[in-house]
Amino acid sequence: MKRLSVILMLALCACTQAPQGNHPSLLLTGKGVKEIRAQRGKLPLFDASADKLIKEADAAVEREICLPTPKDGGGGYSHEMHKLNYYDMYNMAIAWQLTSDEKYARKVKEILLAYVDFYPSLDFHPLGLSGNPGRIFWQTLNESVFLVHTAVAYDCIYDYLTADERNTIEKEFFYPYTDFIMTGLPHNRANTQMFNNLNNWATWACAGVGMIGIVMGDDSLVQKALYGSDLSGEGGFLKQMDVLFSPDGYFTEGAYYLRYAIWPFVTFAQCLDVYNPDLKIFEYRDGILLKAVDALLQMAYEGEFMHFNDALEKGYSAQELISAVDIAYSANPEDKSLLSVVDRYQHRVLVSDAGFAVAKSIAKGETQPLKLKSMWLRDGGDGTEGAFAIMRPSDEKLNSAVTFKATSHGLSHGHFDKLTIAYYDAGNEVLTDYGAARFLNIEAKYNGHYTHENESWAKSSIAHNTLVVDGKNMFGGKWRVAQKYHPEVLWHSFEDGLQAVAAREENAYDGVAFTRYVVYADVPFLEYPLIMDVLKAESSSAHQYDYPLHYNGHMISLSVPYERALTSMEALGTSNGYQHIWTEAKARGGDGVTSYTWLTGYRMYTVSTATTPATEVYLCRSGASDPDFNLRNEPMYILREKGAGNHVFASCLETHGKYDLQIEQSANLVHSCKNVTVLSDDENGITVRYDFIGSHSVTLTLSPTEKAKVNYN
Amino acid sequence: MKRLSVILMLALCACTQAPQGNHPSLLLTGKGVKEIRAQRGKLPLFDASADKLIKEADAAVEREICLPTPKDGGGGYSHEMHKLNYYDMYNMAIAWQLTSDEKYARKVKEILLAYVDFYPSLDFHPLGLSGNPGRIFWQTLNESVFLVHTAVAYDCIYDYLTADERNTIEKEFFYPYTDFIMTGLPHNRANTQMFNNLNNWATWACAGVGMIGIVMGDDSLVQKALYGSDLSGEGGFLKQMDVLFSPDGYFTEGAYYLRYAIWPFVTFAQCLDVYNPDLKIFEYRDGILLKAVDALLQMAYEGEFMHFNDALEKGYSAQELISAVDIAYSANPEDKSLLSVVDRYQHRVLVSDAGFAVAKSIAKGETQPLKLKSMWLRDGGDGTEGAFAIMRPSDEKLNSAVTFKATSHGLSHGHFDKLTIAYYDAGNEVLTDYGAARFLNIEAKYNGHYTHENESWAKSSIAHNTLVVDGKNMFGGKWRVAQKYHPEVLWHSFEDGLQAVAAREENAYDGVAFTRYVVYADVPFLEYPLIMDVLKAESSSAHQYDYPLHYNGHMISLSVPYERALTSMEALGTSNGYQHIWTEAKARGGDGVTSYTWLTGYRMYTVSTATTPATEVYLCRSGASDPDFNLRNEPMYILREKGAGNHVFASCLETHGKYDLQIEQSANLVHSCKNVTVLSDDENGITVRYDFIGSHSVTLTLSPTEKAKVNYN
Repeated sequence: MKRLSVILMLALCACTQAPQGNHPSLLLTGKGVKEIRAQRGKLPLFDASADKLIKEADAAVEREICLPTPKDGGGGYSHEMHKLNYYDMYNMAIAWQLTSDEKYARKVKEILLAYVDFYPSLDFHPLGLSGNPGRIFWQTLNESVFLVHTAVAYDCIYDYLTADERNTIEKEFFYPYTDFIMTGLPHNRANTQMFNNLNNWATWACAGVGMIGIVMGDDSLVQKALYGSDLSGEGGFLKQMDVLFSPDGYFTEGAYYLRYAIWPFVTFAQCLDVYNPDLKIFEYRDGILLKAVDALLQMAYEGEFMHFNDALEKGYSAQELISAVDIAYSANPEDKSLLSVVDRYQHRVLVSDAGFAVAKSIAKGETQPLKLKSMWLRDGGDGTEGAFAIMRPSDEKLNSAVTFKATSHGLSHGHFDKLTIAYYDAGNEVLTDYGAARFLNIEAKYNGHYTHENESWAKSSIAHNTLVVDGKNMFGGKWRVAQKYHPEVLWHSFEDGLQAVAAREENAYDGVAFTRYVVYADVPFLEYPLIMDVLKAESSSAHQYDYPLHYNGHMISLSVPYERALTSMEALGTSNGYQHIWTEAKARGGDGVTSYTWLTGYRMYTVSTATTPATEVYLCRSGASDPDFNLRNEPMYILREKGAGNHVFASCLETHGKYDLQIEQSANLVHSCKNVTVLSDDENGITVRYDFIGSHSVTLTLSPTEKAKVNYN
Repeated sequence: MKRLSVILMLALCACTQAPQGNHPSLLLTGKGVKEIRAQRGKLPLFDASADKLIKEADAAVEREICLPTPKDGGGGYSHEMHKLNYYDMYNMAIAWQLTSDEKYARKVKEILLAYVDFYPSLDFHPLGLSGNPGRIFWQTLNESVFLVHTAVAYDCIYDYLTADERNTIEKEFFYPYTDFIMTGLPHNRANTQMFNNLNNWATWACAGVGMIGIVMGDDSLVQKALYGSDLSGEGGFLKQMDVLFSPDGYFTEGAYYLRYAIWPFVTFAQCLDVYNPDLKIFEYRDGILLKAVDALLQMAYEGEFMHFNDALEKGYSAQELISAVDIAYSANPEDKSLLSVVDRYQHRVLVSDAGFAVAKSIAKGETQPLKLKSMWLRDGGDGTEGAFAIMRPSDEKLNSAVTFKATSHGLSHGHFDKLTIAYYDAGNEVLTDYGAARFLNIEAKYNGHYTHENESWAKSSIAHNTLVVDGKNMFGGKWRVAQKYHPEVLWHSFEDGLQAVAAREENAYDGVAFTRYVVYADVPFLEYPLIMDVLKAESSSAHQYDYPLHYNGHMISLSVPYERALTSMEALGTSNGYQHIWTEAKARGGDGVTSYTWLTGYRMYTVSTATTPATEVYLCRSGASDPDFNLRNEPMYILREKGAGNHVFASCLETHGKYDLQIEQSANLVHSCKNVTVLSDDENGITVRYDFIGSHSVTLTLSPTEKAKVNYN
């Protein structure tokens, strides 16, 4: 007890005696506030954002202060109320800076003092669903996010408070809070490891601790945030920048979580850039944060992030992207294309120095269009763990993208989908990725967490446009096993009119390797570029090979007769995701080729694949074995080959036709591909001929070592 | 043979000697063209539309003339090619007027002369799928549409042609063509009846015949178009205006077909207004055509027409609406709100005098917002055959609409859905109407016609938000029987904050009458207006009553335990639409109330209904017994009551909650209604109490004779 008092005294001294910097000095600076105030009413985009914030701050001023006893998970009352509290403090504190109206600052102070009374007595959150439980929130992650926002609020009203008030708030709230985040509670120190980890929880934790350190003038906290709590550099923000991004800015968990991870990265980086410009944080590792923002913007279609791995529907308008784009622009005002993301999708800016810079440039008419390109994004800290490829046509008007995922697993949010493909066209997702099975924040749906079906369906191999061997999941469905491997990238080539990628996966299935070649080509006699997909499975023993294509749209025609489930319908299997599939129809492949056509939006899409009558064909829909109605009901097309060790799935996907309901005109609704023939398949490679109406053909020559060759006839 | 020559000679004389009016004089006039030419380059909207037309005309000039032998239905090659021909002629002829570039006029002439060679030898179209087959097209309807467009083209190049050329074209093409449309061919005179009918086929036919009559200076054709081929006035355009619209401008087939029907009406009316201003065609019947355009615009949500009866996805941007809005505006330039439809949804205008007037007014900044209102649209020529109601909140920002369909059947495009309701909110269709089961113009889908499932599912009673008795269709599923009756409208009341409608249907089911009250009320203690739906079935004998709600969204929760179809799933029934329903889950009603919640967009919707444990509850999805994959798979919720003669389905539908994925905030996700109690139900009416959390309640008093009373507590 005596010792504790001494520590508290020391802490107290540290607070009062620390050299007091200028406040605010995080996202807003004294200089910035001055300019913002001078320009109020002159920049429509900034004014609208500021007005909205002030409106929210006004509502917050009126709200009764409420700190409910921690009880609920995401979406539940106590969770949402404490979340509201940090947003309220954030909004009011910034409103205070903009307006000097004391009501805002006073209310922030009152809430902070309420937390002073509330926080220290809290034990771990009672829900017990997280390995790293918080105190206010069910997981430490949210505890860190609270701190990031509250640090900004505290920074803004710092000068409004008396020294005594600051002492109380820091000593009895922020220090216990940062201690908790860096270590945990005496009876569970799990946060020590969490804080020094190299993942996005730790990034949030470091950002929160570092930012409150800056505000409180406690550089030791900033150093721990930068180099880990032991200052060794094995953990901390800089190490995270070293390992969490590939040299191309790819984040191993994929676009959706890069969206989330980038938020604390850019936010803390912006604060560090003010606090210690010599760090040159935005130039660190060859400008890795700006590369990551660019990679993130590229991994989107129509402003929505591609759905691979655990992903929900989020895009450029997500709040994280407001921060990412504004801060990236203020760090690199040369990149005027960032302004178009604000202008076209976001329509608001941060009420901060960075947001102000963006609004100023937009008002000056400096906006340039964002150029979406073909991308080859290497995975792995050193770029050697596979890659994510995006192929886009040189004619931007086509508004298409083909993706190929040959990355490493993506930690616990990764799916068992090696070499999966997706296709976007004319504003729609055409070949789809289910993304995550989750209803974020909706308590009635498993408390807003990832549902059980996320494991059993969304992550399963059959839920993806990949190869499924013997009805199993890749790596036995174990992500820690999958995490040890990555596909072997063979080559990629993005030439005008002929783009292609190839990779090989040898570890996903015991005794079976597979190689996939995806070619995206302008074919002189076809209306739209053609996707040629050649997937070769190799094994010394016989297996069942499934080639599923998940699509968005309505079934138009299948080139072979089928047996339709009419009055009763069965699940396709019993495990590994197959239990979630309703078997809508079964058929046998055509002798030579099977073509399947669907309608998406106002266009037709036809996949034609080399088959034999031994090929089994299934038209299916997700949604079986779903006791809680957690799944969406989405269609898929599956080709199944049995009894061979080696098999080549040779397909092409035609985009064709115009179907304009508004003027009732249609054209080219029937596909052109008449046959697909594997001409040769040996150690040198594979040759496939695609025959089209009008005696046209495309001959495709593929090899693991050389780029694809295409011959049009 | 001799007689034929004489007739031809007479026809020839009529043509050459008719007083030649000014050309053009249909949609474009000489005066209009002069002004348009003078203003080219000054009105962005008109210029863009004209440039687009000229671009299409340029493509048409380059196209090889091709008149394929009639063979295919809609979407097929010969059909689409002849359609392209009339669009090509239309575009090129207008381009000629705009530019004086002879290449356009010459090409139109060449195509017309090609039809001179092609047309007269044609027999009926070989497809044989229509009772009124055309010659070029599979149905006479398309033949008439061809004539409307071609009349405009001929009008525009009339002065370019020599008298000999005109003689040839009129004598050998347009006269045989109009003869065919007015009578048919010698071995089948079915068109005589078609032309004098009172439906939209006849409107197209009269418009075509009347317009070519105006161009050729043959007033006898115009008179036949106006008064029927016997000039009795029992048929023809004016009679159609008398009977096809209700006094409120409602069209008995509903919004989707009003959209189609309005096209020839406004087009021919515009031509008549130039040809004979004394007709005052736009003032005819108290301005019925302008009322119809307004009714059509009102029967839309987010610019898309409501889906009742046979309807596909069409809206303000459909080509018919370009004509309807432009022509309505030029007929009544006081209505500046029409400009907002062009400005917000259409982004183009007719390249005509009317389109030019619209573009001029928009350029002058005269646009006013379109005000969507609550509407009570009476059905029937004299307004006594029921009504279609739309209730909209006075706060436009809510962007909601509740509809109630108490109309007559709607001819062959009507559905068996008396007193059905729909609900639109926050940009989404929430309580849905399936619309039509059809893939327009897609040959692979039953040649683009209405599919069999349109009869067996889309029109069925169970496919609608209405009452289904003993698992049967209303009127035995026979539209000619249904057409004899209409519901009895009880009352409607559109007061601010409390809107309500009531109607009674006694003929749909033998021995069962039902009354439905729909109340849309601002409830002081609820976030959004509440829909209270009270449906009473009455019979002297016991029946099975189904109360289905079709919705758009994802199942969130049901307040009672349910038995889910997991590994196999069965159809709910065997006939009357039930064969198309997959039974996803079954349950028993709660003792007092059953609540069902789903998520649509970013909001929650909960229907709470008075039930007992004897109530059967079904969660279902359309798509069973669908051999050709013609149906969409859409969810529905069904409550079933058995063994009573009288039953009151007392429900409320709450709109609640905020679920913002972009900023990960949610609130009010749990519904408030805790109980629904039918307090009394006798000949005087029904009283229902809805209990909400916080000891709130709404007491609703309903009667067939007096407006609804609501008491909030």
